[in-house]
Amino acid sequence: MEKIRIGIVGYGNIGRGVECAIARNEDMELKAVFTRREPESVTIKTEGVKVVHMDDMLSMKDDIDVMVLCGGSATDLPVMGPEIAANFNIIDSFDTHARIPEYFANVDKAAKEGKNIGIISVGWDPGMFSLNRLYAEAILPQGSTYTFWGKGVSQGHSDAIRRIEGVKNAIQYTVPVEKAVECVRSGSEPELTTRDKHLRECYVVPEEGADLKAIEEAIKTMPNYFDEYDTTVTFITEEELKAEHSKMPHGGFVIRSGETGTERNRHIIEYSLKLDSNPEFTGSVLICYARAAYRLSKAGESGARSVFDIAPAMLSMKTAEELRAQIL
Amino acid sequence: MEKIRIGIVGYGNIGRGVECAIARNEDMELKAVFTRREPESVTIKTEGVKVVHMDDMLSMKDDIDVMVLCGGSATDLPVMGPEIAANFNIIDSFDTHARIPEYFANVDKAAKEGKNIGIISVGWDPGMFSLNRLYAEAILPQGSTYTFWGKGVSQGHSDAIRRIEGVKNAIQYTVPVEKAVECVRSGSEPELTTRDKHLRECYVVPEEGADLKAIEEAIKTMPNYFDEYDTTVTFITEEELKAEHSKMPHGGFVIRSGETGTERNRHIIEYSLKLDSNPEFTGSVLICYARAAYRLSKAGESGARSVFDIAPAMLSMKTAEELRAQIL
Repeated sequence: MEKIRIGIVGYGNIGRGVECAIARNEDMELKAVFTRREPESVTIKTEGVKVVHMDDMLSMKDDIDVMVLCGGSATDLPVMGPEIAANFNIIDSFDTHARIPEYFANVDKAAKEGKNIGIISVGWDPGMFSLNRLYAEAILPQGSTYTFWGKGVSQGHSDAIRRIEGVKNAIQYTVPVEKAVECVRSGSEPELTTRDKHLRECYVVPEEGADLKAIEEAIKTMPNYFDEYDTTVTFITEEELKAEHSKMPHGGFVIRSGETGTERNRHIIEYSLKLDSNPEFTGSVLICYARAAYRLSKAGESGARSVFDIAPAMLSMKTAEELRAQIL
Repeated sequence: MEKIRIGIVGYGNIGRGVECAIARNEDMELKAVFTRREPESVTIKTEGVKVVHMDDMLSMKDDIDVMVLCGGSATDLPVMGPEIAANFNIIDSFDTHARIPEYFANVDKAAKEGKNIGIISVGWDPGMFSLNRLYAEAILPQGSTYTFWGKGVSQGHSDAIRRIEGVKNAIQYTVPVEKAVECVRSGSEPELTTRDKHLRECYVVPEEGADLKAIEEAIKTMPNYFDEYDTTVTFITEEELKAEHSKMPHGGFVIRSGETGTERNRHIIEYSLKLDSNPEFTGSVLICYARAAYRLSKAGESGARSVFDIAPAMLSMKTAEELRAQIL
């Protein structure tokens, strides 16, 4: 079997997650990892695979079928996405929801010019959660959709705490409010405020002699990040942080509650994820869609796509016949 | 807005469910109901819509965009599917899993000759459950998938009980075993027998003077239907049956538990449905896929498809731009 040759661009948490996923998909092969750092300084898990500087990417134009972009959505992807899509098929997990239309347009233009495929915003949210919002809303046009996240680490919120004076290290968990989830599951279609839906649990390692009261106050009143939530702050040691908070679990629920017919019949559609490792799961989803990008490109298609545009069969290693016979 | 003109073929439970779904989708219009009975004898819910004999279907070739076939999978659809696909775009909920490959091939041939689209096996299982098996398995190639059905009425099992001597009426519920579901959710990937996964609850109205012991014995030992399950039999009156068992609720769970990476990280993907009305929900899914069939046909495509082949965006009333901006 000819393998699909993957390049990983950016070797952080997601990049390592993608590397793990490639090893578990026998039709995939990691061809190179691209980095902005000195290639010699980057050691990767997979033996015998090159680490290449990003500036030398084009030298591998004929050796890579799909580039999986693992940069950040704030500043990396808006530049890298269109740039790389001009020369390679790409997949990314762009997750700044508000800027998706603009990013899609930019990737679309570059990918079409380069005759490549670019599938953007792949992962679990955006990604699998988006798909489930779409399917559920299409099936039940009259109803309400609720998305709950957690329990899981929010990198953005953890970073925000770390910027507070007197904070040495910190981690923040987003936690869905069980009562709200149960209320949604009951089918009552409640109106829920931000505060009703999620709690924020913060574990903070203070600098020696820091003003703990001031730190707690600074967190709880931080606009956008914490002020609209019920937030708990627990001070711990660096050792406790390492021992108990070094995994990256996450998950959540998409629930749609809707009505059909004329006798008020109600239906609940629920999709949930419980993930030991957010980056490994995200990497696994990215690799499925890399398979789809490869197939679409082979079929002569080009331009940007989202998960909404990809027929499910494209994601599977199995043939259409096998899928129909085994799991339809 | 030009509406998508739907024909319903067969006016049983599913046909009525489809009728309800059309009324809740503003881009859809019910054009006619086709029946094998005398059209005058069939009264439908929607005002001003024709009931037409199946033999006169071709007279409406230019008036219908998609035919939703609501016949049974055992004998109706294998004949009707290919026959009607030769002249119309069709959607059906063919659910004899073992015969899907053969049925797909027959519909494919007829639909291609007629330049139509035929989307087969649409509903929730096969249908939404199949999709979730595919997505979850593609994301986590190393793992196990479990499907649980219920609590819900099994028409086939209810019919089997009604054929027993001394039984006047009966209804059978398939019930997932809570302990098994919890075990699967824990990620332990248990091996489960048929008996471990589901219970069968039977509510039976006996004929006057019938031998209750004999009925119970006949049910519990019935091969294929009940002998491999833990089965309970409760005798009730016709009035109780009407009052407490006339709704058609159903639902179930698709759960995949799988591993990623090298540190045994585990992930649980769960999709669940809790349905007040099985036929109304199935009808709602069929109507989404009727929209996709219409769009594919307009785009010049033809042949058979399953839910695996349909890009999710095809199902939604929203445009690709709206979907990306609002729910990606």
